[in-house]
Amino acid sequence: MTDVPLIYLDNGATTRTDTGVIDAMVPFFAESFGNASSLHRLGVKSRRALDQSRQILAHAIGAKPSEICFTSGGTESDTLAIRGVADATRRRHMVMAATEHPAVLAQQEWLKRRGFTVTLVPVDANGRVDLDSLLECTTGDTALVSLMHANNEIGTLQDLARIGPALKAHCPGVLFFVDAVQSFTKVPLHVGRAHIDLLALSSHKIHGPKGVGALYVREGVHLGPQLAGGGQEGGTRPGTENIPGIVGFAEAVRIAMATAQEDQKRMRSLRDNLIAECLATLAPVELNGHPEHRLCNNANLNFPGAKAEILLHMLEAQGLLVSSGAACHAGSRKVSHVLQAIGLQVDRGTLRITLCRHTTPDEITRALAILKTVVPEARAMGGA
Amino acid sequence: MTDVPLIYLDNGATTRTDTGVIDAMVPFFAESFGNASSLHRLGVKSRRALDQSRQILAHAIGAKPSEICFTSGGTESDTLAIRGVADATRRRHMVMAATEHPAVLAQQEWLKRRGFTVTLVPVDANGRVDLDSLLECTTGDTALVSLMHANNEIGTLQDLARIGPALKAHCPGVLFFVDAVQSFTKVPLHVGRAHIDLLALSSHKIHGPKGVGALYVREGVHLGPQLAGGGQEGGTRPGTENIPGIVGFAEAVRIAMATAQEDQKRMRSLRDNLIAECLATLAPVELNGHPEHRLCNNANLNFPGAKAEILLHMLEAQGLLVSSGAACHAGSRKVSHVLQAIGLQVDRGTLRITLCRHTTPDEITRALAILKTVVPEARAMGGA
Repeated sequence: MTDVPLIYLDNGATTRTDTGVIDAMVPFFAESFGNASSLHRLGVKSRRALDQSRQILAHAIGAKPSEICFTSGGTESDTLAIRGVADATRRRHMVMAATEHPAVLAQQEWLKRRGFTVTLVPVDANGRVDLDSLLECTTGDTALVSLMHANNEIGTLQDLARIGPALKAHCPGVLFFVDAVQSFTKVPLHVGRAHIDLLALSSHKIHGPKGVGALYVREGVHLGPQLAGGGQEGGTRPGTENIPGIVGFAEAVRIAMATAQEDQKRMRSLRDNLIAECLATLAPVELNGHPEHRLCNNANLNFPGAKAEILLHMLEAQGLLVSSGAACHAGSRKVSHVLQAIGLQVDRGTLRITLCRHTTPDEITRALAILKTVVPEARAMGGA
Repeated sequence: MTDVPLIYLDNGATTRTDTGVIDAMVPFFAESFGNASSLHRLGVKSRRALDQSRQILAHAIGAKPSEICFTSGGTESDTLAIRGVADATRRRHMVMAATEHPAVLAQQEWLKRRGFTVTLVPVDANGRVDLDSLLECTTGDTALVSLMHANNEIGTLQDLARIGPALKAHCPGVLFFVDAVQSFTKVPLHVGRAHIDLLALSSHKIHGPKGVGALYVREGVHLGPQLAGGGQEGGTRPGTENIPGIVGFAEAVRIAMATAQEDQKRMRSLRDNLIAECLATLAPVELNGHPEHRLCNNANLNFPGAKAEILLHMLEAQGLLVSSGAACHAGSRKVSHVLQAIGLQVDRGTLRITLCRHTTPDEITRALAILKTVVPEARAMGGA
């Protein structure tokens, strides 16, 4: 089992850090290691690297450098956006999609203890939010609407460019928060065009290091800081800046943006091939999430008659690493809240297969061969 | 100026990441890069590395692995300790020393808005808290007493082994929080012996990577989590674990603990030599902080007659990098709250000179030669 060459198709959970990213980080560990708050030249070097990183992030989403706040990752960015708004507003209502990430949904308890009501907007069978339903539950007391750009399990994309402007026209003063952790660099995104006020990003989903993320905070939006300390990141996110991590994140963004269009096209083509082959040769197979408006690297498939857990183990034995749901749910046996929201109530042998820009045609061919062996075997063992 | 060989004596601000630490981290970027929540073998490898790191941290402070919660750094650890207790207690009073780190002191506003009163205990001229004063202001309504083990500016150590037990005897149920960011691996510390309930640690002050820290949470102490999400770190600190960073932190701890006693002795001897030479040859010179109960690597000296800012620039021009206060205050012109707390009201040409275990006798000799040239010149230019 240990000698089987691995095919890693779990890039929705995390990605391999690029060599170029590691190379960019290394000098900031042992050479330019200064504290960005220090006045001497080592501090200046770190501040300069921080400024350059901020510019790269800002450029990638159509923001100003001053609107980028670095954090320790997607979970912190989500928390800072939601609690930060809650601490700075007099409104007492928030709206979230039923399929949001746990880092968003799990804020409900905290919000409710602070006098907020939270409305969960349902999604359709493809995982999309209906604009009219969204507008209907948004009132003058709504402080924030939180929508994930691309769902982390089923890959469905929300139509931000349509939703954002409609939301702002319908309900002035409401803030629009988007978790773009999964979609960043995989779907074109411009915060201004989609009227986004707050945008959460993560490094380790795009071949950058773990432990780094960012929150775009539109100029004029005030957040209550969720950490207290030395005033770094304009006071919004104090703490000594993780310069190597931030530099690595920015380099990952730079690399990804340089070839984003070609990469997206190639991933989409490989992914479409994978889905088509599964549908054609392993029937019955069902695709979860929107057939077109979905992440270019995501295939979320049901293999009814097989148990997801058994599938996972048998695929891994052949060297194919995928997941049944999001990594954050991996320990749980329940059907995820996302699958429930699109109408699945029981285990239908769901696999989340997520590619990256390094995934090769050969890997997809081998993955398909493994699936074609394993799925019938797993079905023979019985299941949902 | 750029060709002068640097002598870095600003290790209180941050430290160079050890080569061994970088080597330990690298495999977790591009080889064992799995999400620790993933069920497949790459996830298992990351979980194993996480468990081993937790054991190393726990062992270093006399704790159980389950009592170590990894965070993004000292500021997050401080915030999680204080707000975490505030969110989980019915008591409405906290006590802090006047010389605590900004990440602790800056929590006051947040606490006050939530109905807490905060008592600041003064320190003596050496920066030490008086035990009787501390006990006097601690009542049955006191949820938490927060004391920095070693002050980050003047290096003064608090007598935790005496304070902890006295506190618990005087006031059952009070929690004892210690920020040990500066003292970790430089002063022996056992959480049980000092009756510590919560202990904040940081990686980048001990030759580990930036962006990683830990909070020791004694078994039985309940904290309200300050992030919401996927349930990592027992739910106390959700978010995909920064495995390379955590592994690097643990390796930094392992390296530091292996030779801690010899390193401490050597740093103390070099530091004492530096202080003695300054006192003997650059009079008037004053030492801030306790003459004996101080961090082995810290010299905080006043050079009256010179301006701190001018001293810093002139020393840097000769290649000597030190600071005037903590890095977190570096932008500010005011005398720091720490210096004010020990009775300094005006700039007396204060320099914080902080060694590390790699500092050589030759570097101290060269640093002294530079000080002997620069201090008289800076005094000639006038100042405080």
